[in-house]
Amino acid sequence: MRYELYYWPGIQGRGEFVRLALEAAGARYADVARLSQRDGGGTQALMRLMEDDSVKRKPFAPPYLKAGKLIIGQTANILLFLGPRLGLAPDDEAGRLWAHQLQLTITDLVAEVHETHHPIAASLYFEQQRPEARRRARHFLDERIPRYLGYFEQVLADNPRGKGHLVGKALSYVDLSVFQVIAGLRYAFPNTMRQVEPEYPRLVALHEMVSMQPKLAAYLASKRRIAFNQSGIFRHYPELEA
Amino acid sequence: MRYELYYWPGIQGRGEFVRLALEAAGARYADVARLSQRDGGGTQALMRLMEDDSVKRKPFAPPYLKAGKLIIGQTANILLFLGPRLGLAPDDEAGRLWAHQLQLTITDLVAEVHETHHPIAASLYFEQQRPEARRRARHFLDERIPRYLGYFEQVLADNPRGKGHLVGKALSYVDLSVFQVIAGLRYAFPNTMRQVEPEYPRLVALHEMVSMQPKLAAYLASKRRIAFNQSGIFRHYPELEA
Repeated sequence: MRYELYYWPGIQGRGEFVRLALEAAGARYADVARLSQRDGGGTQALMRLMEDDSVKRKPFAPPYLKAGKLIIGQTANILLFLGPRLGLAPDDEAGRLWAHQLQLTITDLVAEVHETHHPIAASLYFEQQRPEARRRARHFLDERIPRYLGYFEQVLADNPRGKGHLVGKALSYVDLSVFQVIAGLRYAFPNTMRQVEPEYPRLVALHEMVSMQPKLAAYLASKRRIAFNQSGIFRHYPELEA
Repeated sequence: MRYELYYWPGIQGRGEFVRLALEAAGARYADVARLSQRDGGGTQALMRLMEDDSVKRKPFAPPYLKAGKLIIGQTANILLFLGPRLGLAPDDEAGRLWAHQLQLTITDLVAEVHETHHPIAASLYFEQQRPEARRRARHFLDERIPRYLGYFEQVLADNPRGKGHLVGKALSYVDLSVFQVIAGLRYAFPNTMRQVEPEYPRLVALHEMVSMQPKLAAYLASKRRIAFNQSGIFRHYPELEA
């Protein structure tokens, strides 16, 4: 199967959680909107399908994945679908539900990260909601980071088949997603992370382990990995840490 | 199978989406935290399991469901699990992914509704974030309500097996969840909904259809249905509509 990922071409964003799974598994895929317009790419490719009257199960927003005739939206849903196919999820139903449950908790965290710079409206610029963003970010850093990172640290400690994986005894899409969260938080809130990371040694080790997977290491060093930037979900505004 | 739902006893909240599915299917279940403390209920019952060291796959937050030995967290994940078992989801994988995708979009909407009264922090009272809430709510009502309701109206129009259901040709948990969203938005933002509802005739009809399902109608008229109130996700603060 050759997959087609549809996502904004200039950012990691939510699409990155899917890219990491495809890359870690060495899957064949096209990152459609990043192709040249001549090759059917560009942002137009993203919008074309969402406005196509013949598509009866339209996604609400990118990212979405084409797999043959299937069109699948919502990041966690895409990973629910891809996980078993890419060898990145447990075999049993209980294990798959648990992996998905953790992914949905990551989804919540990612949404809260976005809210730190857009607490009033996604349609406004950061500069139009600065005082609110500072206030929200303070609460996020003081209350929510410890709550989420403490939770995932505990999940790592509690995994009976353990050895550094969140779910089961092998690499899963949940490990990849938590890697991405740690990388993103380090980019967005470097001072905070430097300060709190010693409290989460298992998460730090997980980030390191994932980054050293050969296929992942090759991806991260390639041009396919878009750099973090000020249009994505994880953004570095120093004033939000002040 | 007798299910055990664990959720805050005084509000509809996210647990209500699970209650609606269990009730519509006539499932046997206990709403554990609403039992008396003598019968093992109360908020303590909620917390006990989340702090129990012998539980190795702890949920991040309520609601969670016990089904035999399984403990399942995250509302949409619970419905993913229950849907086929309660006859409230399509039989085929593509249909189940589509239903789940819509449920995750409802999850996003519900989170945004909560943000209208808590745009700075869930740990603060509404009264401590009033100006920000007014600003956020204005954007939500002007931009997000039309976007979400327009989307679900279109999904109803596009369902080829149609006749008033969002997914497939029979009642699903997605129909129940959209019913709950419409009811909640009417409670929270009555003036806005009165004004915009004529634009969404299919959604209005869906709400009506669900409320008339015999089992649902009985539930809604019973004491088991907690009334909307100012501690839940959908709250009525008139100033947010002003």
